[in-house]
Amino acid sequence: MKTHEISELNKVKRGANRATYNVEEINNILDVGFIGYVGYTFNKKAITIPMAYGRIGDKIYLHGSKKNRMLLALLENKEASMTVMHLDGLVLARSGLHHSVNYRSATIFGNVTQIDDPIKKENILKCVVDQMISRRWEDIRPINEKELNGTLVVEMTIKTASAKIRAEGVIDEKSDLNLPIWAGVVPIKQIAKFPVSDALLDENINIPQHVLDYYNLNK
Amino acid sequence: MKTHEISELNKVKRGANRATYNVEEINNILDVGFIGYVGYTFNKKAITIPMAYGRIGDKIYLHGSKKNRMLLALLENKEASMTVMHLDGLVLARSGLHHSVNYRSATIFGNVTQIDDPIKKENILKCVVDQMISRRWEDIRPINEKELNGTLVVEMTIKTASAKIRAEGVIDEKSDLNLPIWAGVVPIKQIAKFPVSDALLDENINIPQHVLDYYNLNK
Repeated sequence: MKTHEISELNKVKRGANRATYNVEEINNILDVGFIGYVGYTFNKKAITIPMAYGRIGDKIYLHGSKKNRMLLALLENKEASMTVMHLDGLVLARSGLHHSVNYRSATIFGNVTQIDDPIKKENILKCVVDQMISRRWEDIRPINEKELNGTLVVEMTIKTASAKIRAEGVIDEKSDLNLPIWAGVVPIKQIAKFPVSDALLDENINIPQHVLDYYNLNK
Repeated sequence: MKTHEISELNKVKRGANRATYNVEEINNILDVGFIGYVGYTFNKKAITIPMAYGRIGDKIYLHGSKKNRMLLALLENKEASMTVMHLDGLVLARSGLHHSVNYRSATIFGNVTQIDDPIKKENILKCVVDQMISRRWEDIRPINEKELNGTLVVEMTIKTASAKIRAEGVIDEKSDLNLPIWAGVVPIKQIAKFPVSDALLDENINIPQHVLDYYNLNK
């Protein structure tokens, strides 16, 4: 199993028993989502911005306006980090400090470069849209040259990464187990509700299969 | 209505029509959640870590082990930023670049200081637990001196902030509106499933009202 090299940058120190550096496991966490929290520095201050992303192999793609401050800062710094987290449950213990959450989170670090080739850019924007909802791109109006030219596309090559997964029940102090206090887990899930068609849509246009599939998978 | 001062740091440039600097609106976004994405710099690299937080007035509280690398870095830098986002829907347009999401996000910037007073620390840890699930603290085993001493508590005073809210349908090019392409919104929601009691729990202990209330509010 391929794993990311462990260094000072990505080594998980708190809760190391929950850490993984396995490439496949980390990719799985990335692929469940499509919004990542990208860190960058502006005037020496660390700022975090949620961004839509797409993944192809060891590349993560971001896009935005050509004036996007964050993307321009990433390109200037030539590196970036991104964190993705899925919340799976509230872990309610008998004492305050043992409260926790079940989750899957991944943090990746990578080198950043700008993509200018229009064919590559188009493939990347397809990847970003399809990361949000599978098979959407083939159903929509093709992108045009003006749109491609106006879009800044940034490629991050994953250099290293780590993930943390907690998927278990309450862990309490032994001495607390006989207290008359309820403890347990409240499972948390992100769901989709039934799609709402655009008000301007011709009423003869049905909700397409890829949208119904998304709904059925996430409802 | 009280608003945060707008500066180069917090001014929203892309999608400025969706921006708000209103303190109450930003606090509302913070109070719906309990996990924030905290940015810090490590060896000049910006890293983002998801953290549980609590809010009291213009203060945001974080806690962790006394060796927590991120908290120690925040204290050394004396400032921090944190982003909270709630995903409310996928906005599926007729063209790729008009795909978007409905969301509420807030980014806050603040000065950071360590809290050492044990009574303050206890109140803060109560705030953090109750931010996750309301009225939990009063039902659990009180924190003890050893636990308090072993916990690093960090207070961030919000100096400035901004938020962005998108809560509307598809916005397409006029020239695309007559295309035979489905467009619409898939609403997204984070829900709770029925609480699962700890396997070690005495079967005579029922799920308490505050946990049932959380479930009923979020199911």
